[in-house]
Amino acid sequence: MSLKFSRLGARQKESDIARLMTIALQRPDLLSLAAGFTDNATLPLPELTEIATLLNEEGDQSILQYGANQGNAKLRNLMTERLQAQDRVSDSYDPDCSFITNGSQQALYLAVQTLCDAGDIVLVEGPTYFVFLEMLRGLGMEAVSMPMLASGDVDVDRLEQKLDAFAAAGEIDRVKAVYLVSYFANPSGHSVSRGCKSELLDLLGKYDGSIALFEDAAYRELYYDEPFGCESSIALAGARSVVPVFYSTTLTKSFATGLKVGYGYCTHADWLARMMAIKGQQDFGTANYNQALLAKSLETGLFDRHLALLRTSYLRKMQALDKRLGESLDDGDWSWERPEGGLYIWMSAPDGIETGFDSAFHQAAIEAGVMYVPGELCHAEGMPKNKVRLSFGVLGLDDLEAAANRFCAAANRFAASQIS
Amino acid sequence: MSLKFSRLGARQKESDIARLMTIALQRPDLLSLAAGFTDNATLPLPELTEIATLLNEEGDQSILQYGANQGNAKLRNLMTERLQAQDRVSDSYDPDCSFITNGSQQALYLAVQTLCDAGDIVLVEGPTYFVFLEMLRGLGMEAVSMPMLASGDVDVDRLEQKLDAFAAAGEIDRVKAVYLVSYFANPSGHSVSRGCKSELLDLLGKYDGSIALFEDAAYRELYYDEPFGCESSIALAGARSVVPVFYSTTLTKSFATGLKVGYGYCTHADWLARMMAIKGQQDFGTANYNQALLAKSLETGLFDRHLALLRTSYLRKMQALDKRLGESLDDGDWSWERPEGGLYIWMSAPDGIETGFDSAFHQAAIEAGVMYVPGELCHAEGMPKNKVRLSFGVLGLDDLEAAANRFCAAANRFAASQIS
Repeated sequence: MSLKFSRLGARQKESDIARLMTIALQRPDLLSLAAGFTDNATLPLPELTEIATLLNEEGDQSILQYGANQGNAKLRNLMTERLQAQDRVSDSYDPDCSFITNGSQQALYLAVQTLCDAGDIVLVEGPTYFVFLEMLRGLGMEAVSMPMLASGDVDVDRLEQKLDAFAAAGEIDRVKAVYLVSYFANPSGHSVSRGCKSELLDLLGKYDGSIALFEDAAYRELYYDEPFGCESSIALAGARSVVPVFYSTTLTKSFATGLKVGYGYCTHADWLARMMAIKGQQDFGTANYNQALLAKSLETGLFDRHLALLRTSYLRKMQALDKRLGESLDDGDWSWERPEGGLYIWMSAPDGIETGFDSAFHQAAIEAGVMYVPGELCHAEGMPKNKVRLSFGVLGLDDLEAAANRFCAAANRFAASQIS
Repeated sequence: MSLKFSRLGARQKESDIARLMTIALQRPDLLSLAAGFTDNATLPLPELTEIATLLNEEGDQSILQYGANQGNAKLRNLMTERLQAQDRVSDSYDPDCSFITNGSQQALYLAVQTLCDAGDIVLVEGPTYFVFLEMLRGLGMEAVSMPMLASGDVDVDRLEQKLDAFAAAGEIDRVKAVYLVSYFANPSGHSVSRGCKSELLDLLGKYDGSIALFEDAAYRELYYDEPFGCESSIALAGARSVVPVFYSTTLTKSFATGLKVGYGYCTHADWLARMMAIKGQQDFGTANYNQALLAKSLETGLFDRHLALLRTSYLRKMQALDKRLGESLDDGDWSWERPEGGLYIWMSAPDGIETGFDSAFHQAAIEAGVMYVPGELCHAEGMPKNKVRLSFGVLGLDDLEAAANRFCAAANRFAASQIS
């Protein structure tokens, strides 16, 4: 007899991210087109220190006290107003529906914990955010890919057939939620069209509120030129919809990741109350000081000034990577679209080149000194084998170009070796 | 059909803490001897701002970057050295066994998630930390009180009989861990003696590592005069013990609660790896900036200087509360011990006075303008009905004396009304 783990504990295994990180640690010479980090040079350390100084001058010591489990009221008000302005709706959103978490990851974790038992199904896009897939696996849920259109939107007609098939098989009760990364998505860069989101809400509405919609809007504010022109599912569903909508975003991905603060909004009061009960057990509230820093950064305009800088910086980096890929890849069969926001270029390798973790191409890229995220990680099932996610988040311009050169050199050599 | 919650979600209900907070919100005139907060006046806002300024001058922007899931290496090294110094052991503890969490609460949550399925048993002291009891209930575990000695230690002989009884009933597999609040405990103020801890480790050793020990040392550094003279279970078990030991403490309860950073150490590598996999899914690492602030506060000595101030401040407040209770309670049958650390006085009301949430005495205290934590919340079962936890954490000296006066007046009036 020795230590016996819970079903949850026994299910855990080394994560794909951990595998990527192990490679990065073993090979510090590698340039990373894999990590979805922001680059250190753009992190606002002096500006944030000014905010800290300002808070000290104001002298409210309670910012170093425990905060409320659901989050700082001022920050929730500011963020709820911000969401309402983004959605351009006149009826007011209710800050009581909102909450603050340790990054948007915890918001998603709470949403899944509250709704899903092991064996339940969450429907996801293909491709989708691979860390969310890992979370589902860790919690014992089944991720099922939704049928997709060539446009990148969900094929709602075929999804309806899929749900009908679940119903016919007596399995519809296992389907708990649809997970949508709706703005400049990780990894595809795609934003979900209004038509698609509306049809999806209509379809879910037929299930009397038993299937929830998780909308992950982490990159919504990281557009380059203008916001994507579709309101959130909260606005689109409207107050009379039976579909429970859970919306999450981050305050720090596009500001200072090291502060780790997420924001959630849930239209279903009982669901929210249960998530907050679990959060009370998990950590009893997110660090209060960080929330004070962020509320003040929003109030003083620092947050928006910094966001404007980041948009320019990421646009420039995306353009540089796109240009280098276009110029340096011999094989015209590599394809990708230029994103209009976010941190990623999602590529298709030419037919016959597989890009997976254990593929020869992945090995060739690492040997050339560059890391990418194998596209297979971003698919729940039925995955194409030739996808690559390149991130221009973490590297500065010079390193980014060097990394792109390495990637292209590896791709060109690899293609040549395949032919010969 | 409408939204159907997971078993975990369906189990959630309003917490006792939430009930206490609701009372506090409805009656802002109440003085709180309930909240286990630190007082705002002692929170080191100017000092922490200096640390923030220092970090900015050093110019390492990466402190605002994502951090490692297991925690900042420098902070883990500093804390592991600190633990080793407290334990006065010569063989070195391994920082790789340590990890950083969102307060020690998350460390405990991960430990329980990894080991326990719904229906499993965690053995607890009577009384014990009531937020931990709430967590167990929320996760569907059964908390079972261990037999206790009059000294406040666990009665290990009778515990052995209890474990034998579980074994005889074929239920020993449900028993996953012993939870021990071992230094200046919340709520009792008691510290677990070396004899008790050793016997307990010996007893658990007979179960071949299938029952783990959770040691919660949150208040270890909040002694008034000198540290409690017993090393941690890590030292006491020694490297050859089969008992998996999980040790948790907080960096912020005795510094700046609003930073919310906990530290854990686990002697069982596989258990630790599974906890870290779950943490990766829950939030993918604790806020990196907060860890940098704390590492620098430790390095510069600010942390220890502040701790010395807090010890004096809490000692003075404990003495004031103790004195006022001694002078003002008419009924000599109220009894309590002076703690030697921590934030709490644990009292027994005279026979015949019940102190529970819905008791007449609790109502009388609230009517007198003072809140306390009903002792029944701190017991898993077989609870005495006459216990009261008073905290001298949150109130400054003047308010503390006013609150004590209100409490004594309520107690005296209540006793008189019982007699008449």
